[in-house]
Formats: sequence, structure tokens, C-alpha cells
Amino acid sequence: MSAATTAVADLVHVEDLAALARGAAVLGTGGGGDPYVGRLLAEQALREYGPVRLVSPAELPDDACVVPVAMMGAPTVMVEKTPSVELIGRTVTALAEHLRVTPTHLACIEAGGINSTIPLVAAAQLGLPLVDGDGMGRAFPELQMVLPTLSGIAATPMSIADEKGNVGVLHTIDNHWAESLARTLTITMGCSAIISNYLMSGPQARESLVAGTLSLCRTLGRRIEAVRADHGDPVAAVADELGGRVLHTGKVTDVARRTTTGFARGDATVAGPDGVLELRFQNEHLVAVRDGDVLVSTPDLIIVLDSDTGEPVTTEALRFGHRVSVLGAPADPRWHSAAAIELVGPRYFGYDHDPVRVWGGSARPGGAR
Amino acid sequence: MSAATTAVADLVHVEDLAALARGAAVLGTGGGGDPYVGRLLAEQALREYGPVRLVSPAELPDDACVVPVAMMGAPTVMVEKTPSVELIGRTVTALAEHLRVTPTHLACIEAGGINSTIPLVAAAQLGLPLVDGDGMGRAFPELQMVLPTLSGIAATPMSIADEKGNVGVLHTIDNHWAESLARTLTITMGCSAIISNYLMSGPQARESLVAGTLSLCRTLGRRIEAVRADHGDPVAAVADELGGRVLHTGKVTDVARRTTTGFARGDATVAGPDGVLELRFQNEHLVAVRDGDVLVSTPDLIIVLDSDTGEPVTTEALRFGHRVSVLGAPADPRWHSAAAIELVGPRYFGYDHDPVRVWGGSARPGGAR
Repeated sequence: MSAATTAVADLVHVEDLAALARGAAVLGTGGGGDPYVGRLLAEQALREYGPVRLVSPAELPDDACVVPVAMMGAPTVMVEKTPSVELIGRTVTALAEHLRVTPTHLACIEAGGINSTIPLVAAAQLGLPLVDGDGMGRAFPELQMVLPTLSGIAATPMSIADEKGNVGVLHTIDNHWAESLARTLTITMGCSAIISNYLMSGPQARESLVAGTLSLCRTLGRRIEAVRADHGDPVAAVADELGGRVLHTGKVTDVARRTTTGFARGDATVAGPDGVLELRFQNEHLVAVRDGDVLVSTPDLIIVLDSDTGEPVTTEALRFGHRVSVLGAPADPRWHSAAAIELVGPRYFGYDHDPVRVWGGSARPGGAR
Repeated sequence: MSAATTAVADLVHVEDLAALARGAAVLGTGGGGDPYVGRLLAEQALREYGPVRLVSPAELPDDACVVPVAMMGAPTVMVEKTPSVELIGRTVTALAEHLRVTPTHLACIEAGGINSTIPLVAAAQLGLPLVDGDGMGRAFPELQMVLPTLSGIAATPMSIADEKGNVGVLHTIDNHWAESLARTLTITMGCSAIISNYLMSGPQARESLVAGTLSLCRTLGRRIEAVRADHGDPVAAVADELGGRVLHTGKVTDVARRTTTGFARGDATVAGPDGVLELRFQNEHLVAVRDGDVLVSTPDLIIVLDSDTGEPVTTEALRFGHRVSVLGAPADPRWHSAAAIELVGPRYFGYDHDPVRVWGGSARPGGAR
């Protein structure tokens, strides 16, 4: 747990972005955006505005005004509609101006190839530090599916903006209504939009964020590269880093993917020596089933990596013939409370079973994250 | 023209509401809401807060801050989901607070059984005068279809709120995008919402509003009642008051109505001695066709009245067996410019013909309104 939660106040440079985006896409569990697009976006901003300072949640002053920013929509569309640096900053500013507050720190609401780098872009452009943490420790498809919801933090007021210049501000009665109204706007805006919400004070951020996510992403991304350079096993290295295990290895034999109600939904099959694994996803991988047995399910992480290179494979990039390894890794322990299971458990997504954890019924003793 | 455009600064009392809502539903051309629901809403507000002062556009000071407010959605749903007095006022306040402006006058954006009384409700509650005018001189189904659009006035910033307590503010790049985003929110909010937009200065309101609409609604409503009491012909009286003509009389023999994409869409047939008239509507009546001939089309007004009582019949209230008279009446002349026809002409709604005017190719000489 040490690497993930130790306060690390340092700078993110252009040279860190490839590793950071790669690691973020690992935690993105198939969603959260393509790491290559995310890296390009952040490179542009960091080249223009300089490096971004990371601040651990523990270092936040009580009167901090922490503003998360993210991309919302279907990853299948996100890869074709890269937002501009200016749009990302404008979305943060729209919320701040509406509320007449001055942001002191930006934050990531989820880990993902794009959603971990969007806040870096805004931080560079607005000259603000970025919290080394995120609201999930992974990615989830819906807006209310964040640890701040479980801490009673409201998803709104929120801003939402598109690349054409349309901007909205929403105040909703609960976080599920924020998802409904923001999703419908996102769809009309063309299936992707930039959002800024879950404004937090220092104590709220300390309580509700997963600490150290960006450092962990960078570490993960670097380790994959280093192990590969050493002709080692990058897949095993990721499993080790996250305290997880390899569930399955094989070749993608089928992918059924549709962009519907603003999400990339579908399933994929991976045929290997141990049988045929089915992956079911809604932006993120939610359930892994083999021969009728659920091996792992949400809220634990289901991660698909290229078997040779260890590069994360997002749901929109899954394709026939790809040789992949599927890993399970434990989610932040807060995701296993009863309230959390109601918010993100298999039944919420329409699967008629309880969560299946990567290390059986209980968390792995001393397991990472 | 005199009755409609002479400046009449007077008070709207509870006793005026039945006539005003009835007249508004005549101009609503099938849409704009049910006059009975509109009357009940306004009665509640005027009983609690007192009468509302009408101010003609000519009397508006240049630095006026004129704020229209309306209901958006499918009339089929509006009749079942009456908004509260508090919600209507809150929608105006949400826009004013977002923009940090102080409204000086409220206004109607369209004429209709509900949309002419919603602003009365807000005016009573907020203690503000109401402009005696509206943005159309009739009702149209989409948000951009107002004379202010033709004067270059932006539909946004706008507020949108529902009865549950959700509120949005939109800034869009043009008035068509305001329609798209507000419509999608309206649908998710349950197919009806309260909106406030088209903020105007005094000169903008003078240029772009139709003057005298509320006075005309009251006059129309009173005349229908008076002629009926005198055993006269209320249908002929409405045609006379609006400079229009009776197109058709008969019995409703078929109504196909569906609430889709946030609108009440459909068509109805009226069989009478002159043949079978088809009415095609999207919230409002858009085209009247008999034996393959278009008799009248948008932007001119197509009005359905109960043949005996002269009461207006909204599209959602059309039913089999109802004996009705269908009138055509000239729209405000500004609706016949080339730009206006592009905005609200038959082709916009998918009908493959030019507009057909109630008095042939040109406006009736000296025609009313």
C-alpha cells in the first residue's frame, strides 16, 4: 500500500506522460479513455505551459477548493473527438465563475488513459497544482459511481461543455439525477463532453479520494516498460504491482460492441488453454465469466493487457485475434461496503449475482491498494 | 390592428384569467397548453399575490431587463404535470442569479393556454410587471421559433428547471443548439420543464415582440363568452377579431397522436359537408389539407374551435366525434420574411411545399394583427 498512499509532492513532466497514461489505462479497466490520445493531449499542454505539481491529499489545506475535471461519454467516440486544451480549461472556469469560487487545486475523478490526463491539461493551462489521487482508484461508467458519492459529496453544481462552444451548468437533487441529465446532454453534444464537478474542500478530498493514484499510474507505466526492456513478463509485473492475479490468457475470438445510450456496451470472448472467457463491459469491464463461473466482477478491477507487451487494451480497442491476458485486482476497500455494492455492484448493472472478489470472499491479507 | 397594438397599461385580475387563457389558447393554434390548466395555475398565484400590471412594449425603459418564462415540452404531458407557482418563480430567479441581473419585467415568449399564464404566475410571485406582448403572436413547437431569433437575440443564457428540484443553465452557440440541449433535458426531466430565456433590453423587446398579445387574448376570450351569451356565432366572432376565415366545419373522425422526441405529434381528420380536412401537428397545427389541397400552413395560424361554444381545442384534447370549426388567421407579418419561412415554414417541418397563406399570396389589406 505504501507506494500508493505516501505523500509525493513532485512534478509531472512531458517525459512522464507516456508512463502515466499507460498506468492510468491499466487502472481504467478497459474504460477511462485511450492512453495514446490522453498522452498526446497532455503533451500539448505541458509543452506549452510547463510541468504540473502533484500534491498529495494529506498536504491539502482545509480551505482548499479542489475541482475535478473529466471527459464524459462513450470511449468509442472519445478516441475520434479529442478535446482541445482550451475546452478543458474553459469547463473548469465555467463552474468556478458560476459559483464565484477560485479553484486552488485540480483533481482526477477517475483513473483512465484520458481521464487521468485531462486534469493534467487543465492544471497546466490554469497554473494550478493537481491532487495525487482520484475519486475511484479505477474507472466506472456512470457519474455517480465515485467514492465522494459514498461520502455524501454532491455531484453538482457541475459544468458540462462541448467542442462547439456549448456550455451547461447543472444543479440536481442527487447524484443519480446528475448522471441522467449530464448523460442526456453528453449524448446530444455528440456522445462526448468535458465535465467539472464534485467540488471538494481539503478535508472532503482527504476523506473521499484514493490517495496516490497518479504516482501509482506513473510507477505502473514505468515498470511495464522496464520489465519489457529486460525481456521479463510485464503482465506478471502489473499483477504484482496491484496485488492481483492473472485470470486468463488467450486470443480475442469475438467482440460485440455498440455505442448506445451514450456508452460503449458489449462483450468479448477470449479463447485460451483454460477455456473461453467472456468479458462484459459498459465502458469498463464489469464481469469476467469462464465456463459459467464468474471469476471476478465489479467492483474489483478486470484488466486486459497485451500478453506480449503488457500494454493496456481499452474496450474500444479490443479486436479479433489480439493475444491478451486478463487480470483481476482488488478495488479500494471502500468499494466493498454495502452502500458501495448498491452503487457499483453487479446487480446495479443487471447481473444477477453478488460481487466476486479477486481473492475470494475477503480482501487479500496485506494486499496492495 | 388598433386593439392589439395600442399601449394598454392595466391590471390583470383573477376575474380576467378565464377569458385571457381562453383567448391565449385560440392564438396557441392547438399548442401552448390547455387553457383550463393555465387558468388554474394563474388563479392560484393571483389570489395569493394580487393582480399583475401589464406594460406595453412602447412603455418599457431602455434599461429594462425583460425576462420571458415558459413551459417547454409535450402538451400531452403538461396537462398531467402542472408546475407549482414556486417552480416558475425559481426558474426566473435561477437565470437572474446566474447572470447577476435584476429582472424589471417578465414576458411571454408565446401565446398559449399555459404559456400566456405562466409569466403571469411569475409576475405575481416576484411582484414584477408583465409585458403586454409575446415573442410569436401565436405558438410554435421549437424554442428557436420566435421573432427575437429573427432580430438576432440569443436564446441563451437560459435556465431550465423541473418539479423535482433539478435546475440547469445553458449557454449555446446558437438558438438551434439551445433547442437541442433544452429539449433533451426536458425529455429526461419527464417531458415537461419550465424555462426562462431570451433576456431582452427595452429596445430589443420593442423591436422583437408582438405588442398587445395579452390584451388581445383577453379581448378574444371575453368576446367568445359574450357572443355565446347572446346566442351569436362565437366562431365567426373569432375569425372577425383575428382577420381570418373559417376553413372547414365538421366532426373529428380520426386522431393519431404520439408523444415522441418530446413533442405531441400527429394528425387528425375532420369530416364535414365540404369534404375531409386533415390537420397535421407538432404540438401546434402546422398544415390543413383538404382533398389534397393545402388550405393554410405555418406560419399562418390554424385554429380549432368547438363549433357550438367557440372554445379553443388544443391538440391533446382533440377527440373522436368532437364537432369543430377550423379557422385560418394571418400571422404577424414578420413571420412571412424569407428568414422567417426558413425558421418556421412548412419545409422546416418536412412538408414539401411553400407556405399557403390564409388570404392567398399576400396579406389581407388592412388585416387585423
